[in-house]
Amino acid sequence: MNVAVVGANGQIGKQVVGFLKEDGHTPRAIVRKEEQVQSFEQEGVEAALVDLEGTVEQISNGLKGADAVVFSAGSGGSTGSDKTLLIDLDGAVKTMEAAKEAGIERFIIVSALQAHHRENWNYSLKPYYVAKHFADRALEDSGLTYTIIRPGGLLNEEGTGKVSAAENLERGSIPREDVARTIVASLTEASTFNKGFDLISGSTGIEEAVKNV
Amino acid sequence: MNVAVVGANGQIGKQVVGFLKEDGHTPRAIVRKEEQVQSFEQEGVEAALVDLEGTVEQISNGLKGADAVVFSAGSGGSTGSDKTLLIDLDGAVKTMEAAKEAGIERFIIVSALQAHHRENWNYSLKPYYVAKHFADRALEDSGLTYTIIRPGGLLNEEGTGKVSAAENLERGSIPREDVARTIVASLTEASTFNKGFDLISGSTGIEEAVKNV
Repeated sequence: MNVAVVGANGQIGKQVVGFLKEDGHTPRAIVRKEEQVQSFEQEGVEAALVDLEGTVEQISNGLKGADAVVFSAGSGGSTGSDKTLLIDLDGAVKTMEAAKEAGIERFIIVSALQAHHRENWNYSLKPYYVAKHFADRALEDSGLTYTIIRPGGLLNEEGTGKVSAAENLERGSIPREDVARTIVASLTEASTFNKGFDLISGSTGIEEAVKNV
Repeated sequence: MNVAVVGANGQIGKQVVGFLKEDGHTPRAIVRKEEQVQSFEQEGVEAALVDLEGTVEQISNGLKGADAVVFSAGSGGSTGSDKTLLIDLDGAVKTMEAAKEAGIERFIIVSALQAHHRENWNYSLKPYYVAKHFADRALEDSGLTYTIIRPGGLLNEEGTGKVSAAENLERGSIPREDVARTIVASLTEASTFNKGFDLISGSTGIEEAVKNV
């Protein structure tokens, strides 16, 4: 599959690109800076420059020809809620609309643990959770074949390959590497289609975990 | 009709309460401070204390027994995008869910001119527009009998009683008083049901304008 990775320069996105290649897919890095395009192309990865604050049409041009979209972009913790609204919410939803415009059916988004249940939102991250919540709701209503992956606290540790994945999990954490592997394992796994699941470190192999969500 | 006005202490909300009374409706002021409750009750207006950052159930308790909801609350210009996400987006959508929980079918929201068309958003207010856009989308999908009123730049001048109302209008402005009168005129006007419209000052009487949207 040709897979557009939106936010490919991010900490999860970079690993998704690598694992897609390992799995025989063709990643396309969707990034927001020209030097990031060059850096991916130097590694032999197709890349496209897309500004998520741009129009749906501009985003769609960057996605054209892909079979699936992985949305792992985020405005990050240091930019404030303006960018949270513009990137994590509206940027995500414009990317869904752009995918449909480009005739792409498969869409995976990286969300946050329990984003679907307000009562469990981390108080200090509440505005961020609002953005994720409504992006996820828009994806559910989009008509795209979606998977919403809601990881717990993200760690930069090496992955273990063992996770716990279910509709509702208690708070926990997970290495970004395992999130990236779960994304790639979900891509063609029909049991993840049109579903969302929480994801933390656990005791089940990733392939098996995504088969049973 | 018993009409819950969410944000009744705001500049539009206060006038909505007054015009509802004039029209023979029974307003209920939904406000966030105890002294506002007292102030409305002293004027003989039923009032309820509701925190839009609270749960759907808490909001629903404040709405119970009403026949309609007018949502004119807003976090205001001075609070930053955190509150925009929590009040203008999530607070609005929780109020929709609360209305349904309370068995209320009619819901009018005050949005912003062209909130439905990203390409026409006022650049300096973009995060605010994102919040309004997604609140409006949620209302369209809510199953409630909705009206989305999208006024242009809000003025504190006296109203003229003459407006222009249509699905798409060029930028313009309008006194808050005319917005409040349009809300009350829309309440029972079936031609506004399940519709959104832009609203600026114009040359048509308000009653006639809402009949023809």
